[in-house]
Amino acid sequence: MSDETELADDSPNEEDVPEKTKEGASMGAKIGFVFSMVLTSIFLVASLVLVLFWVFMYRGGYAWQENPPKEFNWHPTLMVAGFIFFSGFSMLFYRMMTCCRKIYVKLLHTIFHAFAIACIAIGFLTVWDSHELVNPKIPNFYSLHSWLGLTTMGLFAIQFVVGFFSFLILLCCEGATAACRASLVPTHATFGLITFVMAAATAVTGLTEKALFELKGPLYSEWKSNEAIIINVLGVVIAAAAISITFTLSVPSIRKAPMRMTYHTDL
Amino acid sequence: MSDETELADDSPNEEDVPEKTKEGASMGAKIGFVFSMVLTSIFLVASLVLVLFWVFMYRGGYAWQENPPKEFNWHPTLMVAGFIFFSGFSMLFYRMMTCCRKIYVKLLHTIFHAFAIACIAIGFLTVWDSHELVNPKIPNFYSLHSWLGLTTMGLFAIQFVVGFFSFLILLCCEGATAACRASLVPTHATFGLITFVMAAATAVTGLTEKALFELKGPLYSEWKSNEAIIINVLGVVIAAAAISITFTLSVPSIRKAPMRMTYHTDL
Repeated sequence: MSDETELADDSPNEEDVPEKTKEGASMGAKIGFVFSMVLTSIFLVASLVLVLFWVFMYRGGYAWQENPPKEFNWHPTLMVAGFIFFSGFSMLFYRMMTCCRKIYVKLLHTIFHAFAIACIAIGFLTVWDSHELVNPKIPNFYSLHSWLGLTTMGLFAIQFVVGFFSFLILLCCEGATAACRASLVPTHATFGLITFVMAAATAVTGLTEKALFELKGPLYSEWKSNEAIIINVLGVVIAAAAISITFTLSVPSIRKAPMRMTYHTDL
Repeated sequence: MSDETELADDSPNEEDVPEKTKEGASMGAKIGFVFSMVLTSIFLVASLVLVLFWVFMYRGGYAWQENPPKEFNWHPTLMVAGFIFFSGFSMLFYRMMTCCRKIYVKLLHTIFHAFAIACIAIGFLTVWDSHELVNPKIPNFYSLHSWLGLTTMGLFAIQFVVGFFSFLILLCCEGATAACRASLVPTHATFGLITFVMAAATAVTGLTEKALFELKGPLYSEWKSNEAIIINVLGVVIAAAAISITFTLSVPSIRKAPMRMTYHTDL
């Protein structure tokens, strides 16, 4: 989340920065900040590694339209890559990279979200294909998972468009738009985190669906297949990433730790 | 979430309050605050009403141990009542009630969470019973839903115990513990919101499980039963409550709107 410190990030005048923040954070807060960053990074990487391991070891790997059930396997992989891995690191890097000019940090934030969009778009197409190219067809958009997924994609698209225009395009008339841009920062940051958490909630419903569709009876309920444990651990790791990133970006004493280095006048 | 304004809430000295916050918020921010409070309240009430409607109209109402499948129906009802309805209103009231002495607000926050604990405990026992009292027994703790649920209950218990001791018991030596209590407030607030969102994520996995167990084939995938729509709408309303409460308690311009009235010295 953001607050007046983040507003000051986007302020053209360094005098607006609160004095106590300029003085820097305690060593304890810095260690806490680094620790929570590292922990979040581990969860983000682990979610991608686990989904790849799951698909290669238990779901038969990937294919394209010639094999719709295996084409489906792109869906969880690319959605985790886009919504969790790239979006998560995009948010972390924005907070972490305090050594560069702000415009470069914004561009990296945008590029990572552009990777995320590519993953999400292909992830959406592959599940659509895997429902449409089988006989009989599988209906679309009937489940709670699909409803939550559409809501999350809508939030993501709005966030990207508003963020792109507000924080990059409006820079063309820098001085005139500083107050407007600054006023949007907290809402953009909060809804970015909400979108991430919604994506995590959608992911765990998707994993629940897949477990119940594929692991009938004792395969899931008595763990007769190790796949049951892999699916559950993947869900818990995604939830842990959501908890960890919320903590990292929300608790003030953690969030503000390295802020003293981030006040640039080069918006 | 919390930040230095919330810290100031727990500060024994009113001089710590930032000047701009003391001056009060604009009319727009106040309207935004009230609007987001009302919207969140509607989602919280709607989630409880919908789960009751669902159980009475489609699941045959409630029973006790003489009918384990109907005893199960207490599980979704009481978990939504505890984790969503009572916890949600407890957090909202803490932010909303700016007219009373802080100790009364804290007591109301605690009482609502105590109601939540009662609901959660009975909600847990009823699902346990409904698995153990049938023949053959249904295994426990195998699903992702149960893993996420146990994590959420653990977070809730830690939050309650830490909150109870830190913000009520430690008041017995008020002056000596003010700094300690103040330093815990942001973490308590952030983890309160994280617990709420985790509960919502657990709820949507539970609803997905129930829909797939009870509504086989076209009953769910082609909406041959209206119950499919009720379950999906309930899941979306719970997700909307999580989004709305995060927005209400996190966006600074909304969150701080009525803060000028909240600085008490009667911790």
